[in-house]
Amino acid sequence: MSGALLQCVPNYSEGRRQEVIDSIVAPFKKTAGVHLLDFRADPDHNRLVVTLVGNPGPLQDALLESAAAAIAGIDMRHHAGAHPRIGAVDVIPFVPARGITLEECVPITREFAGRYARETGVPVYLYEAAALRPERRNLETVRKGQYEALVKEIGNPDRAPDIGPPRLHPTAGATVIGARQFLVAFNINLKSRDIGAARDIARKIRASGGGFSHVKAVGIDLENQGMVQVSINVTDYRINPLHEVFALVKAEAAARGIEVAESEIYGLVPADALIAAAAHSLKLADFQPAQVLDLRLLDLLGGD
Amino acid sequence: MSGALLQCVPNYSEGRRQEVIDSIVAPFKKTAGVHLLDFRADPDHNRLVVTLVGNPGPLQDALLESAAAAIAGIDMRHHAGAHPRIGAVDVIPFVPARGITLEECVPITREFAGRYARETGVPVYLYEAAALRPERRNLETVRKGQYEALVKEIGNPDRAPDIGPPRLHPTAGATVIGARQFLVAFNINLKSRDIGAARDIARKIRASGGGFSHVKAVGIDLENQGMVQVSINVTDYRINPLHEVFALVKAEAAARGIEVAESEIYGLVPADALIAAAAHSLKLADFQPAQVLDLRLLDLLGGD
Repeated sequence: MSGALLQCVPNYSEGRRQEVIDSIVAPFKKTAGVHLLDFRADPDHNRLVVTLVGNPGPLQDALLESAAAAIAGIDMRHHAGAHPRIGAVDVIPFVPARGITLEECVPITREFAGRYARETGVPVYLYEAAALRPERRNLETVRKGQYEALVKEIGNPDRAPDIGPPRLHPTAGATVIGARQFLVAFNINLKSRDIGAARDIARKIRASGGGFSHVKAVGIDLENQGMVQVSINVTDYRINPLHEVFALVKAEAAARGIEVAESEIYGLVPADALIAAAAHSLKLADFQPAQVLDLRLLDLLGGD
Repeated sequence: MSGALLQCVPNYSEGRRQEVIDSIVAPFKKTAGVHLLDFRADPDHNRLVVTLVGNPGPLQDALLESAAAAIAGIDMRHHAGAHPRIGAVDVIPFVPARGITLEECVPITREFAGRYARETGVPVYLYEAAALRPERRNLETVRKGQYEALVKEIGNPDRAPDIGPPRLHPTAGATVIGARQFLVAFNINLKSRDIGAARDIARKIRASGGGFSHVKAVGIDLENQGMVQVSINVTDYRINPLHEVFALVKAEAAARGIEVAESEIYGLVPADALIAAAAHSLKLADFQPAQVLDLRLLDLLGGD
């Protein structure tokens, strides 16, 4: 595998029915030039998160085939789950992985969005670095009120899709496609059934509530596990390190008499995000990523 | 770079004179098939630690050229420093890095030791996995009493070299060569001038004192920094994770009213040693190294 490598983390609105999950993932297992790094279905979120890496061409072919399976298998009119969503194929983010910059991902992403809308008939909103309207850089703005609100509002000029038909797909809703930096999905579970506390803590730590500038968070009820969760997206872990996010959640929970049970990284994480956490906890002074053997080997073996 | 990759971490008894350090390192900068990953000279230890990775053949050629420079530049009769040593080229450990096992490193190491003794006239002791006498698996046994003791005792049958002349090189002493698993050099500095405390803590945490089974440690006075150090080698970080070693040093120091100032990883460290520390401090449940993007890319790019 050489040339530019993109990472892609498509999110699908299905976390429960195994046969639908299998049909969505199948194209990523058989396409040459595409590597399926991780996929996780969450029944509470009723959501499937797939992590891929590959060369742009084969990656996009496989994404379209997978989208066709998701659109055939998911009916948004009957979908329910804890995670915000507007479509069967909810979000397709492209992320620079190796030998490509975020800026170079933008035209590739927009071109793919056009092809996606043409081939599936699903309208597309462009977000983050690929956004055509500045306010749509933010995924939450695009997904405001979720599928149910969009059914009523898609005709309004401020909610018109960027690409494709001006109306929702009858069963698959809409899709958000974009280019962004690596996002770490970092969930912290609390030994509590108090969903209000989880929501308060989420509000406190996120940018919109005056917390960390590159953190998004929501409180989620994990009924099946008898806990609540602060479900966090760290959109720039270099600016807001995981250990600082963890420390603030722990402190806010403690102030409410609640203990942290455990945390979870959902999908992939870049090595340097964990190295920073290790360096902090071990009080490592002057530590350089170049001291990590595997990263040095990657430089030697990976060429440019 | 393909085929078997060895890591090699030669230690030289020179940490102060820049021109000697430069002459030792030079062969590693110019030899094709050898990559100089790291080198650090420590004036307190009066020691140079070099980290290399490469294919076995070129690596061994460069090591011999470098040894010639060290032997020409260092006179053990006038050497002093805080770190135990028996020769100008003190230790040459080979470590499996990729596409090779420790067992496969053993014959390569013994063959190199023969060539080294022939070409330099320096006697060799074989240690760890390459040892010919079981008691010499342990580096400390080989280095007992250091250079000064070996001058008197090398004629004793139990201290006879394994390979090469039965006497010390007139100025360069002897060299220990072996094959081993990755060793993490992890030093913890204490906000104290109490060398007795550092030595007590070192004794407490190491295998020989009833502490961690795969930890070696000594107390060292860092005069230049006004601190003392627990200087630690973790010979199997999977069995004795860095965060557990750190926690015990911290607790033992606290029991003596001493704070940990900072820690240091000397040279390279495998990613999974730091990932384990991060997972512990972030309370990550069910985290897999396969979730680390860079490690997955290394698998994809590195072939077998």
